[in-house]
Amino acid sequence: MTFMQKVIEKIKGLNIKVLDKQEDIYPYAFDTAPLKDEIALPVCVVFPASTENVRDIIKIAAEYGLNIIPRGAATCHTSGCKPNNKSIVLHLSLMDKIIELNKEDLTIKVQPYVTIGHLNKEAEKNGLFFPPDPSNLAVSTAGGAVALSSGGPRAFKYGTTKDYVINLKVVLPTGEIIETGSNVAKNVTGYNLTQLFTGSEGTLGVITEITFKLIPKPEKRLVTFAYFDSIVDAAKGVNNVINALIVPSTLDLLDKNTLQTIEKFNPTGIIEDKEAALLIEIDGSEAKIKEDNKKLFSILENSGAVKIIQSNNEEENENIWKARRSAYACVTKLKPNVATEDVVVNKSKILPLIQGIREICSKYNIMVCIMGHAGDGNIHPNFALDLNNEEEKKNFEKVKTELFKLAIDLGGSLSGEHGIGSEKKPYLKMALDPVAYKYMEKIKKLFDPDNIMNPNKMF
Amino acid sequence: MTFMQKVIEKIKGLNIKVLDKQEDIYPYAFDTAPLKDEIALPVCVVFPASTENVRDIIKIAAEYGLNIIPRGAATCHTSGCKPNNKSIVLHLSLMDKIIELNKEDLTIKVQPYVTIGHLNKEAEKNGLFFPPDPSNLAVSTAGGAVALSSGGPRAFKYGTTKDYVINLKVVLPTGEIIETGSNVAKNVTGYNLTQLFTGSEGTLGVITEITFKLIPKPEKRLVTFAYFDSIVDAAKGVNNVINALIVPSTLDLLDKNTLQTIEKFNPTGIIEDKEAALLIEIDGSEAKIKEDNKKLFSILENSGAVKIIQSNNEEENENIWKARRSAYACVTKLKPNVATEDVVVNKSKILPLIQGIREICSKYNIMVCIMGHAGDGNIHPNFALDLNNEEEKKNFEKVKTELFKLAIDLGGSLSGEHGIGSEKKPYLKMALDPVAYKYMEKIKKLFDPDNIMNPNKMF
Repeated sequence: MTFMQKVIEKIKGLNIKVLDKQEDIYPYAFDTAPLKDEIALPVCVVFPASTENVRDIIKIAAEYGLNIIPRGAATCHTSGCKPNNKSIVLHLSLMDKIIELNKEDLTIKVQPYVTIGHLNKEAEKNGLFFPPDPSNLAVSTAGGAVALSSGGPRAFKYGTTKDYVINLKVVLPTGEIIETGSNVAKNVTGYNLTQLFTGSEGTLGVITEITFKLIPKPEKRLVTFAYFDSIVDAAKGVNNVINALIVPSTLDLLDKNTLQTIEKFNPTGIIEDKEAALLIEIDGSEAKIKEDNKKLFSILENSGAVKIIQSNNEEENENIWKARRSAYACVTKLKPNVATEDVVVNKSKILPLIQGIREICSKYNIMVCIMGHAGDGNIHPNFALDLNNEEEKKNFEKVKTELFKLAIDLGGSLSGEHGIGSEKKPYLKMALDPVAYKYMEKIKKLFDPDNIMNPNKMF
Repeated sequence: MTFMQKVIEKIKGLNIKVLDKQEDIYPYAFDTAPLKDEIALPVCVVFPASTENVRDIIKIAAEYGLNIIPRGAATCHTSGCKPNNKSIVLHLSLMDKIIELNKEDLTIKVQPYVTIGHLNKEAEKNGLFFPPDPSNLAVSTAGGAVALSSGGPRAFKYGTTKDYVINLKVVLPTGEIIETGSNVAKNVTGYNLTQLFTGSEGTLGVITEITFKLIPKPEKRLVTFAYFDSIVDAAKGVNNVINALIVPSTLDLLDKNTLQTIEKFNPTGIIEDKEAALLIEIDGSEAKIKEDNKKLFSILENSGAVKIIQSNNEEENENIWKARRSAYACVTKLKPNVATEDVVVNKSKILPLIQGIREICSKYNIMVCIMGHAGDGNIHPNFALDLNNEEEKKNFEKVKTELFKLAIDLGGSLSGEHGIGSEKKPYLKMALDPVAYKYMEKIKKLFDPDNIMNPNKMF
C-alpha cells in the first residue's frame, strides 16, 4: 500500500466519504479565479459530516505531513481554496444544517455549508434579516462568507459579514476545538478571537459552527436605476448621495461596458446603453422610503441623471436585481476568461479610481467592465481576457500590479470583500504596514506552526 | 542617583512631562473600582505628547524592567489601569486632538484622549454621528472606549465601539509602531488586527491614533419612560419590544432601588417610585418616529405599563437622559463604596438574570440597584457597600462569584462593555472556552513576551 493509499484507507476507516480517483477530484483543483498553467491535484477530497470528523481528518493530515484545504462553494475569485499535491481538500458540503434560529435572541447558529440564500430565507420566515449578500446568494456559503468576511451590495448600509458573526467553533491545526467567543452579541470578555478568525481565509483553522446575529427585516425596499451620460456625473451622484447623509442599503455603479454586456447576454429591457448607471436601493418603512426617495430623486436629477427608473413592486425590484447580479456571468461570455478584481478606496476617491482603471486598461489593451459598490469605495473591475494569448496574459499581470498600486496610492487597499487567497498574495506587502505584516505572519505561526492549514494563501 | 531617579531623569531628558512626588502620583494609583486594601504607587506618571514620546517611554521601561500602564479617564470600574510599584503610568491627556474629520468619507481620526462627548460634538457639527455613548460622555476618552470596546445605552441599535473602529496606530511593547489596518471602512486585507487590539485593555500596546467611521446623525429622537408595577412586566415589555422587531436606539431598564436612589439624590420630578421603568429612545426621521412610536406605545400598554411619559422636545429628552445618567453618581451617595458590575446574557434571559441577582443579594444582605441595557441583555447591578465592614466585604466577594456563575449558567458572559481589568481577572477562566483562554495567553506572549504592558489585567 502506498503512502497516499494509507491516508485514504485511514479516512475511509472513519466512515468519512472520500473521493480519490483522478476524474473525481479534478474539479476540486481550482476555484472561480481564471485558470493558470499549473493544476495541482490534491491527494483526495473528503466530506466530513461533523466537527469531530474535521478534527480526525486534520489529525491524519498532521500525522502524514499533508495540508488541509477547506472548501465551500469556491466562489471567492482569489484561488483561496486551491490545493497543492500534498493536500487533502476538506469539502464541507455535508455540514449544511441550520442548527438553531432563536427569534427572541435575534441569533442563528449554522453549519458552514448553509448557503446565504437559505439562511436568509429562514430568517425572513421569522421577520428577521441577514444583510450580507454576496452576488451568488444561491451558492455562497456561510462558512465561506465568514472566512472571507464577504460583503455585497447591501454593505453600504449594513456592513459586511464580520459585523454579524458573534461566535465560532473552529478546529485548529493541532486538532483542538476552540469556541472563539460566546453566543451573546455584546461581549468584551478577552481578546476578540472571533474577529481574528473572521476573514482569515481558512489559514488558521476550519470553521465548523457559526453564530450570527440577525436584525429585523426592513418592511419594504425601493430600487432605483439612474442613468448618466458621463462617468464623472455618476461618480458625483454617488458623492452627492453620501454628502446628503441619506443611507441607501445599496449604492452601486455600473459603467458603459457593463451595461452593454448585460444587455447583450441577458436582455431584460431594463438596461440601457448609457455611459454609466447607479443602482440604488433604499429600504425601511413605507413612510421612511417615501421621505428618502424624495431627497434621492432630486439629488440624482441635480447630479445630471438623464433617466431614472424606479420599481413599483417587489417583482420589479427583483428584476432589476437579477439584471445586476447577472453582470459577472455576462462578462464571462465576452472572452474565454474573466478575472474579477476587488479594490477599495475611500468614498471620495471613486472617480480617480475608476478613471485610473480605464487608463491602465487602455494602456495595456485589456477589456474591462467596471462595476461595484461605489458607496463603499469598493470597485470590481471585471477583465474579459484570453489567457491563451501570451501577450494578453503578460499584459494582464501588469494591469493587476498597476491597479493595486493605484488603489493603495489613493489611500485604499487590496480587497473589500473577496480576500487575498493566492492570487493577491504577492501584493499583500504593498498594502500592509510592514510591522502589521510581520505580526500577521507570527499569528499564523502561533496557530499553525507546521503550516498545515490552507498554505500559500495570504502569506 | 537611585535606579528610579535614573529612569525619571531619562524621561525628563526627552522633554516629556513627569510627575514623581508621592502626593502628585497618588491619584493615579486607582480607578473607579472600589478601593481594596493595597495601594501601589507607580514609579512615576508621564505625559507623552506624541506617538514618538510613547515609543521612547516604552523603550526606557523595557530597558529598566518596568511596566507601562496606559491611562485615559480611568472610568472603567475594573481596575483596568491600576499600577504596581514597578510601573510607569502613561497618562495620555496631552494627546487630545482631533486630527481630521473627513465629511466625504464619513471618518474621523483622533488622538486617544479626545472625549467621546467632544468627538460627537464635532461629528454633529457636520451632520454626522458617533453612536457609542458610555454614560460619562464628558470624560470618557476615545482611547479608553477602544481599549474596552465601550458601549452605552445606544448599543442596542448601533452596536459598540468595535463596530466603528477601522484603523489604529499602536506602539507595541517592543517600541515598534504598528498601523493595524487602513483607513477604509470595508477591508479584508490580512488578519483583523484592528479588532484584536480593540478591547485588549492596554495589554498588547498603547493606542496613539484611532480612525472611526461615522454615520449620518438621526434627524430626531423621542424618549419614553414607561413605569411598571412589577419587574416581571418590565422584563416582558423588553422582550415584547424585541419580538415586535422595533429597533429603538435605547432599551434600558431601571429597578425600584435605582428609581428611588435617583429621585433621592437628584430630584427631577420625572422619576417616580415604581417597581421598574423602561427608558426607550427611538430615533430617525419624524415620520419614522411617529410610526415606531405608535407600535411602541401599544406594546408598552399591553405589557402592563402603568404610566408612560414621553418627551415633547430636545430639552425634555435631555432632562430624562440627565436623570438616567446620574444613576451611578446617585448610588455612590448611598454608602461609602459603590461597585458597578456588567454582566451580559441573551435577550431572552433578562428576567432570570435580574431575579437571580436579587436572590443572591438578599442571601448576602447586600444592597443593589439594578439598571442596564436590557435590550442587549447587558445588566449593571450597582452595589452600595461599606467595605470597611469586614463581613460586608467578604459577602460582596461571594455575591460577585455567584453573579458571574449565574450569568454564565444562563449562557451569558462576564462583561458587555466594561471589560475584565484586574477585578474580573480571577473569573475569566469561568467564562471562556479553555482552548480560547490558552490562545489568548499565547497572543499576549506573542506581542508582549516580557509582560511589560499593563500586567495582571485580563490574564
